[in-house]
Amino acid sequence: MGEPPSRYRFILIQAFQLPAGSPYRHRSTEGPKERQLQNHEQVAPFLADVQWDLHPGALTTYGDWQVENREEFACAAAGRLPIVREACRSGKYNGIVLLGGGEPGFHEAREIARPYNIPVTACAHSQMHVAAMLGNRFSVIDMAENHSSYYGNLIVQHRFERRCASIRNLQLPHPRPPHADPHLAEQKQQALRGERSEMLEAALIEAVAAIEEDGAEVITFGCSATFWMQPFLERRLADLGWEVPVLEGYRCAIGLAKLMVDMGLSASALAYPGDRPRRWRRKKLV
Amino acid sequence: MGEPPSRYRFILIQAFQLPAGSPYRHRSTEGPKERQLQNHEQVAPFLADVQWDLHPGALTTYGDWQVENREEFACAAAGRLPIVREACRSGKYNGIVLLGGGEPGFHEAREIARPYNIPVTACAHSQMHVAAMLGNRFSVIDMAENHSSYYGNLIVQHRFERRCASIRNLQLPHPRPPHADPHLAEQKQQALRGERSEMLEAALIEAVAAIEEDGAEVITFGCSATFWMQPFLERRLADLGWEVPVLEGYRCAIGLAKLMVDMGLSASALAYPGDRPRRWRRKKLV
Amino acid sequence: MGEPPSRYRFILIQAFQLPAGSPYRHRSTEGPKERQLQNHEQVAPFLADVQWDLHPGALTTYGDWQVENREEFACAAAGRLPIVREACRSGKYNGIVLLGGGEPGFHEAREIARPYNIPVTACAHSQMHVAAMLGNRFSVIDMAENHSSYYGNLIVQHRFERRCASIRNLQLPHPRPPHADPHLAEQKQQALRGERSEMLEAALIEAVAAIEEDGAEVITFGCSATFWMQPFLERRLADLGWEVPVLEGYRCAIGLAKLMVDMGLSASALAYPGDRPRRWRRKKLV
Amino acid sequence: MGEPPSRYRFILIQAFQLPAGSPYRHRSTEGPKERQLQNHEQVAPFLADVQWDLHPGALTTYGDWQVENREEFACAAAGRLPIVREACRSGKYNGIVLLGGGEPGFHEAREIARPYNIPVTACAHSQMHVAAMLGNRFSVIDMAENHSSYYGNLIVQHRFERRCASIRNLQLPHPRPPHADPHLAEQKQQALRGERSEMLEAALIEAVAAIEEDGAEVITFGCSATFWMQPFLERRLADLGWEVPVLEGYRCAIGLAKLMVDMGLSASALAYPGDRPRRWRRKKLV
Amino acid sequence: MGEPPSRYRFILIQAFQLPAGSPYRHRSTEGPKERQLQNHEQVAPFLADVQWDLHPGALTTYGDWQVENREEFACAAAGRLPIVREACRSGKYNGIVLLGGGEPGFHEAREIARPYNIPVTACAHSQMHVAAMLGNRFSVIDMAENHSSYYGNLIVQHRFERRCASIRNLQLPHPRPPHADPHLAEQKQQALRGERSEMLEAALIEAVAAIEEDGAEVITFGCSATFWMQPFLERRLADLGWEVPVLEGYRCAIGLAKLMVDMGLSASALAYPGDRPRRWRRKKLV
Amino acid sequence: MGEPPSRYRFILIQAFQLPAGSPYRHRSTEGPKERQLQNHEQVAPFLADVQWDLHPGALTTYGDWQVENREEFACAAAGRLPIVREACRSGKYNGIVLLGGGEPGFHEAREIARPYNIPVTACAHSQMHVAAMLGNRFSVIDMAENHSSYYGNLIVQHRFERRCASIRNLQLPHPRPPHADPHLAEQKQQALRGERSEMLEAALIEAVAAIEEDGAEVITFGCSATFWMQPFLERRLADLGWEVPVLEGYRCAIGLAKLMVDMGLSASALAYPGDRPRRWRRKKLV
Repeated sequence: MGEPPSRYRFILIQAFQLPAGSPYRHRSTEGPKERQLQNHEQVAPFLADVQWDLHPGALTTYGDWQVENREEFACAAAGRLPIVREACRSGKYNGIVLLGGGEPGFHEAREIARPYNIPVTACAHSQMHVAAMLGNRFSVIDMAENHSSYYGNLIVQHRFERRCASIRNLQLPHPRPPHADPHLAEQKQQALRGERSEMLEAALIEAVAAIEEDGAEVITFGCSATFWMQPFLERRLADLGWEVPVLEGYRCAIGLAKLMVDMGLSASALAYPGDRPRRWRRKKLV
Repeated sequence: MGEPPSRYRFILIQAFQLPAGSPYRHRSTEGPKERQLQNHEQVAPFLADVQWDLHPGALTTYGDWQVENREEFACAAAGRLPIVREACRSGKYNGIVLLGGGEPGFHEAREIARPYNIPVTACAHSQMHVAAMLGNRFSVIDMAENHSSYYGNLIVQHRFERRCASIRNLQLPHPRPPHADPHLAEQKQQALRGERSEMLEAALIEAVAAIEEDGAEVITFGCSATFWMQPFLERRLADLGWEVPVLEGYRCAIGLAKLMVDMGLSASALAYPGDRPRRWRRKKLV
Repeated sequence: MGEPPSRYRFILIQAFQLPAGSPYRHRSTEGPKERQLQNHEQVAPFLADVQWDLHPGALTTYGDWQVENREEFACAAAGRLPIVREACRSGKYNGIVLLGGGEPGFHEAREIARPYNIPVTACAHSQMHVAAMLGNRFSVIDMAENHSSYYGNLIVQHRFERRCASIRNLQLPHPRPPHADPHLAEQKQQALRGERSEMLEAALIEAVAAIEEDGAEVITFGCSATFWMQPFLERRLADLGWEVPVLEGYRCAIGLAKLMVDMGLSASALAYPGDRPRRWRRKKLV
Repeated sequence: MGEPPSRYRFILIQAFQLPAGSPYRHRSTEGPKERQLQNHEQVAPFLADVQWDLHPGALTTYGDWQVENREEFACAAAGRLPIVREACRSGKYNGIVLLGGGEPGFHEAREIARPYNIPVTACAHSQMHVAAMLGNRFSVIDMAENHSSYYGNLIVQHRFERRCASIRNLQLPHPRPPHADPHLAEQKQQALRGERSEMLEAALIEAVAAIEEDGAEVITFGCSATFWMQPFLERRLADLGWEVPVLEGYRCAIGLAKLMVDMGLSASALAYPGDRPRRWRRKKLV
Repeated sequence: MGEPPSRYRFILIQAFQLPAGSPYRHRSTEGPKERQLQNHEQVAPFLADVQWDLHPGALTTYGDWQVENREEFACAAAGRLPIVREACRSGKYNGIVLLGGGEPGFHEAREIARPYNIPVTACAHSQMHVAAMLGNRFSVIDMAENHSSYYGNLIVQHRFERRCASIRNLQLPHPRPPHADPHLAEQKQQALRGERSEMLEAALIEAVAAIEEDGAEVITFGCSATFWMQPFLERRLADLGWEVPVLEGYRCAIGLAKLMVDMGLSASALAYPGDRPRRWRRKKLV
Repeated sequence: MGEPPSRYRFILIQAFQLPAGSPYRHRSTEGPKERQLQNHEQVAPFLADVQWDLHPGALTTYGDWQVENREEFACAAAGRLPIVREACRSGKYNGIVLLGGGEPGFHEAREIARPYNIPVTACAHSQMHVAAMLGNRFSVIDMAENHSSYYGNLIVQHRFERRCASIRNLQLPHPRPPHADPHLAEQKQQALRGERSEMLEAALIEAVAAIEEDGAEVITFGCSATFWMQPFLERRLADLGWEVPVLEGYRCAIGLAKLMVDMGLSASALAYPGDRPRRWRRKKLV
């Protein structure tokens, strides 16, 4: 490529790919990578000094609609791992950014990439860590009961149970058979056109409740279909007088990946051991 | 079948199935189900009043060796879900018991089976719950650093972090390429022949350390390849004067499945919601 | 007896017995055991395969009204222990089920019965453990401030503080001198007659609040005088669209007792040591 | 009495009283109160400004040996409550100090005394609170496995689980049938005579281990039969270079009772509600 | 002085002193100590048996208004330490009471005073410890967002996170340039005159919310400018039927100082070690 | 300056400055900034793309030796705040990095800088956050009991209590009157010369103990005088077979400052509110 060499050589891997003929397709998998990357106009400044490729993700195996519940996340997780392994083996990248709010395959990807000393970051983990640097508790704005339930598991797994004020659910699920709901991406278009977005209005109500009732000091997002609201919601909250950071996953995950590359870190081999480690522990504390 | 009708109609699903030609195969997938079920001679009394089928599990997709690390567990999880769904749809079962110590696919299987009101139990979750009924803290005897690291995640996820005294790792991993270690199943045969089993001796040392140093009041097992030690270890500890319950996963998982069937319970729809629940919550606490 | 031999030989022990002449008596202590067992019509299926005796409990020593506050529970606890000891010594039983919502004498009874390897189960402990298998948090519907305060101590003691969403108090206390309130058992009769039960309506309101505000994913009951509501409340919640398990103590305690018998377990001797154990620990962790 | 009027009018209530003919009697119940009060020579300065009575405690009901296990504590708890009630009703006292390391009946006594606004203090609760003012973690020196197991429950109940470094058990149990062990009070006499006390030497070893290994920053005692060691152990630790506070129950309980009287406090009516409180809460958090 | 000798020889040290010409001065630094001590009429009975001096505190270095935010507390902390050191060296005192709700310099003062075995108590720490003796959870009534945010840090630092139900903020900040708000001390004068105090009315609303919604069983105060409300608020709550202890800092801090003197305690040298301790630990647990 | 414009314009502020004539001076405050910055040769790559100034810190007020105990940290905190304020006002910087292991004034500096939206990072906070991204638990290698005790408070304050495996103390304190110990900087020179460093050898022993006994999966450092060991210790651990990340404060603090600048973040105004915020909360949760 004609781009100048960068210290950051990242691959961004979509959480999954819907088959070409799916009526539920929510993004293009053709054309330049910029067009395929959700909210690229927001994320672009964060990628300006990054040499990046975009992988469209593995084709879904459970059906042709978007990932939302636990089963679908498990399939997406297994599907993404060969892509991660291939990326590591290719020698082309020094950082892997897993796209998708529910970060399917995150732990497994870190396990695969750790021996290569390639950091892997993902949207839930990164948001939680950045949020914890900024305030005492964070809340999560999410879009469906099944997704929120799954997302709660991530919070527990990442040990942020005490730092999570609440998950606030808008219950605006993805379309799936037999439900012909509108794509959530429509909401963003409405907001961009200056129209009223039901999703944004609901998010504002929930964010204020999270601040006033649940003790949230930082707002984050769950499903990546809600990430577009980050600047809109931050501004709306500021208009109300709430100076509260609002985070979304892509920027956080890219940011942490850069931090890891800068510091030469990926993960502890004691947390993600290889199959036959030179040293092992008789006792592991949880 | 000629069996009398039972109140319990269970399907036991293996965690995975190695291809027929694999040099790492550790159990038969042919012959009567009793022969295919690990430690059947120990488990048989628990199945005496159960009408049960055994599913050999999905073929592994990552290779032809046993599941041990996070990546392998993720593949096994995704592979097992269609079997769970089919079992639910068949109408033949009122309980699903997931075999395998690391319970791949457990949360997802509960999500799938909940709308059928079919309980799903698994070996790690069940051992932890039974252990918590018996004493303040439990320790886990496990067999490899990578497996223990993964298993630690399960403990956190099931919210038993405060009840887990330690994971004690024997570091006797499964054979995998290019390592031609002996099958762990050999250890059991040695013990049955009255010979010295390195695994059992190491487990005894770690169990005593767990009791004396870590505060364990119940001993459990991690990988199902260690389950065979349950009666041996309990007796050896008793010989030393330690009257401590030693649990293993199959009996616990079958026991909890019976309990759930008896009580007509499977899981809360608030913890494992359907895709379009009639009611949903604005606020979820983690 | 003419009953067929059962694998379960249980004694159910009432929490206490009011003197024959008490105006506060809430159940018969005469006639067949079935008549003496509260909500027998609901519990009967759970006892169908059990060979069971019912002990009417020790006579109250503090007065002739029902147990409700801490002092009364302490008296009931001490009163029940000789019955437990006698039941163990008799050799007639392989399980002891302590009736009564506040489980007076539970820890002591386990200590007494453990050397006989006889499991003891009780209503609060059992509900909490079953609830924890089904969802992340449970709430407790209870009937009086003094009882709830005592019950909170049980939750802490059983280490379910983090899993308890709330205790929801209906403040419908037992009659006690000089208060001539109606017996709570009246409420059940009203419901059975298809009339409006103040208790049930209040419980429904609190259960919904527990779900929507407190994060409850399972509903349990505190005082055994509320147990009758289990099927009614579950149905009412379902009618509102909330698919949430509602538990009560008798079924849970019987269920766990069967589980323990099936598995040959009672309690860890490290949690409930004998007076002169063969082995003891220099260090105990809390 | 000829004593000058004091601001503190306390009743000290023994945990229990052994029958006169018991071979296990460990203290006189005759003669002046000073002779009946264990370690009076140590405690006297703390009582110098207190007008105090000593109640010998209720006769044991389970046998004629000392309280040590859970069952025995439950009997002692029930036995002590009428004494507490009578003390409250008498109008003679403005503070109640429950003697005995395991504080049988403490919660119940607070419930009884709260409407009189009479504070009740006890040895475990008081030691834990004073210890928490002095350092991050405390350890408990205790004398038998059964007692330590019971004592662990107190620590959890008082919500000091995170502040307790360990219970260190010397396993020097009380004599009880059929075990004719020497009275533990002998140990104190040996120390006073300048002889070697096995108990004190063992306590020193465990206290050092608690400091060096468990993270203890304050040392406390469990069973009141170990309280005599307080000044001896503190000095021995200081001789080794460890400047660590060593607490015992009597002084702590008397101290907190004075504090409560000074401040006009007893307990919150929300934690120890009356039977028919004017106000009650719909929601109680644990 | 002509006072009789007392067992308690205390120095009370103000948190800071505003310069003489400050328009923000909220108390006199002239005249008898009684006039300089805020709410002396309430505190006097607690000092009746104490021989006490009052130090007016160090002059503020950041400006001439009252301490409210973190920066101002840090300056006050550093300013108070030489006074503490001088008080220790003087040999005149056996207890140091740090006035001021936010207890600037508390940990450092304990470190300084510990080798002299002089206890140091302060208003936040003391209230939390006394509150924890009385009920399960306490709430804090505080007067400004910046102060509450700082105060939250104190609660975490003192490890009462789990015992704190909430901080309830009235948002009635101190005057500071350029804001010419009335002094909060005006509020007390209004209440004393029998007039309506906005602060007291707001505190009542928040205290009731703390009890009914947050689970508070004890009410405490944050900034010392709110301490005057203690008897008023307790009475108003009682009038509503809530029998809940209301604490304030001065009485709690004086009370704990007396307790420490009575017991001969100051702090653990393991928590507040000297610069070259005779013994040190390889391992410290947090 | 001739440097190219950078996206990062940082001021690095020393924790304190010893007076010129102090015999305890451990670094030059003259010459180029590179010479004044401890371990510059290690840190240089992290500053390569940063336009940075170095502030020598405020002169110590408590004496002329290095900061080590709580009192000294409090003085250093107050001393550093005017420098922070001036740096914010100058408009020259978009990030502030507080040097010094114990991060005196960190919370206060964030409060000051937040309205300018300038991030402030510090060595303890940054290490803990980076460590938490890499593994489950971290240990801290520290150099003196008084410092470790203070450092423990930081860990609690930053809410990493559950993630901290241990603080391992080498007890190699700074020289201070009247103790003429060698400067710790000597240790680094020894290591650079290929000689044996007592400090490094002790750190290796403690790091291994932290891994094997305490459950550490990441190693961090406490006092900045130990930071030089980072590459040495990591290599020595790797030589032993332990693949464990070893962090130190400067690189972590610079790294997090870059991350914050990249993301446009500083801190939540709800965690660090201004003095008169537009919006405030009635209820704050801790």
